[in-house]
Amino acid sequence: MGVNSLEHLFWPKSVAIVGASNNPGKAGHQILKTLVEEKFQGKIFAVNTSENEVFGLKCYKSLKDIPDRVEMVVISIPAPGVPDVMKQAAERGDVKAAIIVSAGFAETGIPERIELEKQVVEIAKAAGIRIVGPNCNGIINTGNRISTSFAPGLKMIPGSIGYFTQSGATGGSLLLFASSQPQPLGFSKWVHVGNMCDVTNLEVLEYYASDPSVKVIAGYMEGVRDGRELMKLADRITRQKPLLVLKVGRTEVGSSATLSHTGTLAGSDRIYSAAFAQSGIIRVNTIEELVDSAKALVLAPYPKGNRISVLTEAGGLGIIAMDELGSDPAVQLAPVTQETQEALAKVLPPMAMICKPNGYVDMTAAAMEKEFAESLRLLLKDPNVDAVILIGLPPTFLPAENVAKAIVEVARNHEKPVMVCFMTGQVMEDARKYLEESGIPTFDTPDRAARAMINLIKAASRLNYKGSKVLTLVPDKIFSHNIVKEAAREGRNLLEPEAVQVLEDFGIRMQPFYFAKTEEDAVAGADAIGYPVVLKVVSPQIIHKSDYGGVKLNLYSPEEVRQAYAEIISTVKRKAPDAEIKGVIVTPFMKGGTEVIVGMLRDPQFGPVVMFGLGGVFVEVFKDVSFRVAPFDRDEALKMIAETKAYTILRGARGSQDKDIDALADLLVKIGEIAVSNPEIKEMDLNPVAVFERGLAVLDVRIITEN
Amino acid sequence: MGVNSLEHLFWPKSVAIVGASNNPGKAGHQILKTLVEEKFQGKIFAVNTSENEVFGLKCYKSLKDIPDRVEMVVISIPAPGVPDVMKQAAERGDVKAAIIVSAGFAETGIPERIELEKQVVEIAKAAGIRIVGPNCNGIINTGNRISTSFAPGLKMIPGSIGYFTQSGATGGSLLLFASSQPQPLGFSKWVHVGNMCDVTNLEVLEYYASDPSVKVIAGYMEGVRDGRELMKLADRITRQKPLLVLKVGRTEVGSSATLSHTGTLAGSDRIYSAAFAQSGIIRVNTIEELVDSAKALVLAPYPKGNRISVLTEAGGLGIIAMDELGSDPAVQLAPVTQETQEALAKVLPPMAMICKPNGYVDMTAAAMEKEFAESLRLLLKDPNVDAVILIGLPPTFLPAENVAKAIVEVARNHEKPVMVCFMTGQVMEDARKYLEESGIPTFDTPDRAARAMINLIKAASRLNYKGSKVLTLVPDKIFSHNIVKEAAREGRNLLEPEAVQVLEDFGIRMQPFYFAKTEEDAVAGADAIGYPVVLKVVSPQIIHKSDYGGVKLNLYSPEEVRQAYAEIISTVKRKAPDAEIKGVIVTPFMKGGTEVIVGMLRDPQFGPVVMFGLGGVFVEVFKDVSFRVAPFDRDEALKMIAETKAYTILRGARGSQDKDIDALADLLVKIGEIAVSNPEIKEMDLNPVAVFERGLAVLDVRIITEN
Repeated sequence: MGVNSLEHLFWPKSVAIVGASNNPGKAGHQILKTLVEEKFQGKIFAVNTSENEVFGLKCYKSLKDIPDRVEMVVISIPAPGVPDVMKQAAERGDVKAAIIVSAGFAETGIPERIELEKQVVEIAKAAGIRIVGPNCNGIINTGNRISTSFAPGLKMIPGSIGYFTQSGATGGSLLLFASSQPQPLGFSKWVHVGNMCDVTNLEVLEYYASDPSVKVIAGYMEGVRDGRELMKLADRITRQKPLLVLKVGRTEVGSSATLSHTGTLAGSDRIYSAAFAQSGIIRVNTIEELVDSAKALVLAPYPKGNRISVLTEAGGLGIIAMDELGSDPAVQLAPVTQETQEALAKVLPPMAMICKPNGYVDMTAAAMEKEFAESLRLLLKDPNVDAVILIGLPPTFLPAENVAKAIVEVARNHEKPVMVCFMTGQVMEDARKYLEESGIPTFDTPDRAARAMINLIKAASRLNYKGSKVLTLVPDKIFSHNIVKEAAREGRNLLEPEAVQVLEDFGIRMQPFYFAKTEEDAVAGADAIGYPVVLKVVSPQIIHKSDYGGVKLNLYSPEEVRQAYAEIISTVKRKAPDAEIKGVIVTPFMKGGTEVIVGMLRDPQFGPVVMFGLGGVFVEVFKDVSFRVAPFDRDEALKMIAETKAYTILRGARGSQDKDIDALADLLVKIGEIAVSNPEIKEMDLNPVAVFERGLAVLDVRIITEN
Repeated sequence: MGVNSLEHLFWPKSVAIVGASNNPGKAGHQILKTLVEEKFQGKIFAVNTSENEVFGLKCYKSLKDIPDRVEMVVISIPAPGVPDVMKQAAERGDVKAAIIVSAGFAETGIPERIELEKQVVEIAKAAGIRIVGPNCNGIINTGNRISTSFAPGLKMIPGSIGYFTQSGATGGSLLLFASSQPQPLGFSKWVHVGNMCDVTNLEVLEYYASDPSVKVIAGYMEGVRDGRELMKLADRITRQKPLLVLKVGRTEVGSSATLSHTGTLAGSDRIYSAAFAQSGIIRVNTIEELVDSAKALVLAPYPKGNRISVLTEAGGLGIIAMDELGSDPAVQLAPVTQETQEALAKVLPPMAMICKPNGYVDMTAAAMEKEFAESLRLLLKDPNVDAVILIGLPPTFLPAENVAKAIVEVARNHEKPVMVCFMTGQVMEDARKYLEESGIPTFDTPDRAARAMINLIKAASRLNYKGSKVLTLVPDKIFSHNIVKEAAREGRNLLEPEAVQVLEDFGIRMQPFYFAKTEEDAVAGADAIGYPVVLKVVSPQIIHKSDYGGVKLNLYSPEEVRQAYAEIISTVKRKAPDAEIKGVIVTPFMKGGTEVIVGMLRDPQFGPVVMFGLGGVFVEVFKDVSFRVAPFDRDEALKMIAETKAYTILRGARGSQDKDIDALADLLVKIGEIAVSNPEIKEMDLNPVAVFERGLAVLDVRIITEN
């Protein structure tokens, strides 16, 4: 199913609407009406058993009766009738694509309806017909003016955005929102795939990636079925064109609605964020942010760096923009050169605030077109400035259009993005329209301008990113360990000595340890290892050893080891009478490191995911952890550490020495490799890991298998 | 200067514009133009030495020449000429108020301009003339159609909002933004006080508080000079009418711009947030949020509780609203009754999601006016629902106005707020206008509807709040300690034994301690207290004792005490040769509590502020601390603890026992009382405080005086 197979969906030369109707209360009426009124550039056939004519078109009783070639069929009749229609389409032999608008299939959860959907798919597949839907709004292509959406208010405005949406209603809102911008924001294509019985969002993304008329991809998503496939695709696409995704379900309340709404598992929202960032997807949180950012990406040139200058006519509004910029570490204020600052001082009135702080210029409300134009010109030609946010007010003493024209004159001579917030209202509308027509995006408020700028910068930096590809492990790193396979086959988790062995075999240097089965044995082990030591119970039934009194720390002598051994055995026997005690592990007692936790879990959407955070109570209370979908490289591992507050502590907060962050990054990379190589591993916990000034020590490890 | 003294500013019967001009490039031209065109309900006089007639009005050469009574003077001439004009106004005897639009006074920072401003104030004060400005846009009152603002696009729409702003430009934008709502949002009054040489924002607030035409107060603020005065006022006002404040400078980048922009110290943004919350001010972060929330407060009835139901036609949009609701602990999803759920099931199609999660109803896009109306009715009559957010799309099969009418019919029979998000664009504009005319606020996006609802609920709960007043300490709690006064007089900080004494005298039970001046003395002290003990150096020059080797913990025997004493003395002598060593404190060594930090500082705007957080490295790295302006009561102290993650840990995370949160709350209250009673104290650090299952122990205390 290559990309070309979607060609018939977007560019059919003829379309038959099955369910075309004169009743305005039917979707089939609305769809036909749109095709006729919007002047679809192809042939339209109406099909309905009980109509003779719809919208001046002859109405056929059946697909079979249409004498001309039919390339695409749109089906909008009750679900039970759909298999018959699909059979007729299959029998014709010329139909290449079908959009099933009708609901009442698998999404109902009713077994016979799930069966009905399967039936339709089988008929279509055998005949080589691709299906979008069922339960969908289908597609829009402004290139040939086709639309199967029945949402009202739709404007067929050509442009370069490719939309995909997991909700017809929300996807329709996106279009309406975009078309109510000062200069209505056009699009190339729009798809709502509904139940995805055949064509999926991923296939649509693939199509957009190679569609030259699509320059920016923007979508609405509630969840994905196969997160890894999305990541692989996005990793490739976002090196060529930006991909913006509005992913809902940020908070727990929101997430619970997502779960029930889509039926796809929403997964942990933080894993989504990590996966999106890893694969270059720009995540946005609101409809406004999606449309604002898409507009910026369509209109503005891509910046070379992340150094932003804010040029404002009103201090208050400037600070609002600065507040937004300050919330994202991906951007910084531009370090404007001394030369530019001096030149600005000559242009602006004495009350102006020039570069306090640097990058921020408040012209004061006295600014006229000359001040706007000159200040903007000086900032744009400064080599330390990559982009400018310009904030203006309705001018008192001249038409706003004059200011807009002055801005355009200056901006067109520089290949740097300028975002404009003109506050606000009707007086500024014409000026904003002129700016957008001239390729300068405008925004309702300073914070929205700043947020769009941040996303533009992220997209631009992604286009230049040459980092390693996600999710591919070179074959010689793949090492499926026998111990893991065996434990999984036996339906049990790894014993601690086994887990230690696995880590060692992956090149992680572990503490020396001794597996003792008797008290005397434990003392011998401690003598060999050197005091102080730790004793830990080994039992396949016991995962949380401390909870059963199975751990004794800081033992300084053979006597203490003896006593600890006896206590462990008796306590565990009492607290977990059914557990089989295999013995104890004797290992050195380590002090003085910073304790962190390294974990791994297998996410239903994204597969193996590695987690990092500060150890102890702080993982649970502060939730100060970061995630990466495995495998990933050392660079990503270092970023992963830097995202948490643990980083500050490892970097020697309060004057203590730096800890060995490089060793920690290596460990994270290796845990990712173990996870990818051993699909039988469901979860791992290395907790705690003590990180020292040189090296680190994994003090405890648990490996849980899928069983 | 009572409230009535501002009456002349808002309701003058006659106004003279000094600097009235035929030159459209002058503010005096624009101001006069507005007064004439907007039909100010009073007499207007033009004054200019070099004009004969402006806007068809005779132009007087001087204020002195006006034969009629002049109640207010608006001055818009270059700064150096202002004192003369003020003299003329004073000599007339009938002028009660003046608005000085002109810039070029104290805000320039130039000494002679500061002097010029003082001169003007003196003349006015002697004559009983109140001044707004200089360097301001002055006032607008839609009641008598007066405006001294020269911002274009202004619409004189009567309504019930009272605005104040610290920036003329940003304040003007607020009005434009409000007037471009579907149903333009009106206002009663608007004030930009500029340099505040006489009338301040606080006085304006006071006026609005007693102005029956103002129902909601909304303002833009960069900083305040006297935060405590603002709090006292707000505490009173917000029990009668809501007070919304857009306070910028959230992030460090933003804050630095604020600092340079206003000259008032912005203070710590977190202290602002605490102070606003304590005194009932609702803080908003963007212009959209300010206008959205003001609209909600003006139009909607106040809810009785915080239980919100989300009724949506599109899952995606519903989840966006849920995400926003989930981000604020002040609200919750409504626990819709079983009865309502069953009734909804009868009204809605089988595909609808009813109360999964509870409070959330997705009608699906098939909803028609009947489904909207019936679902809304069922939710509004449910006793477990306090408010409803309703999200609709442009309907395919009927006019949007029909849906709007159905909503209004239902909503008007219930005294519960309904917020509507109709997504979006031109097709919905008429419906939105109808809804707002009918008292139902509408919003561009679901997140903005949700945010406005959150602020409405906060305002409503404040109106019902009967808690203790802020910032008043009953006289018998005020106790100015001699030790503090003496230390301050001597220009030094408190020695630890003194600090301990102060805390004890305020009823805080401290550990027994012994102030030893020799080695033998230290051993005697340890014997008396019981082992293990701690030794800490006492020296007026040493604040951070640990940094100089001045602390020894966990000493188990006289020998250890002896050795520790000797080590402390020798290390401190070596590391701080100039420090005078007064001896050591001997005190019990405590183990096993949760370590927290309690601090106090004197903020330049808000005065004494108490801080609470987890101890150790976590204060610095996680910045997990909360603030309260002192004094405050036990309730506030408990909230203060609950705002931090320390709360989870004190409440026995990981199965450990609850710690004594009540004792901690008492300590916080007392530290506030000490801070208020002793203005000589600049900072206090109780760090660490060990909180046990019963009681707590202040393990170290530092008191720094203003010296």
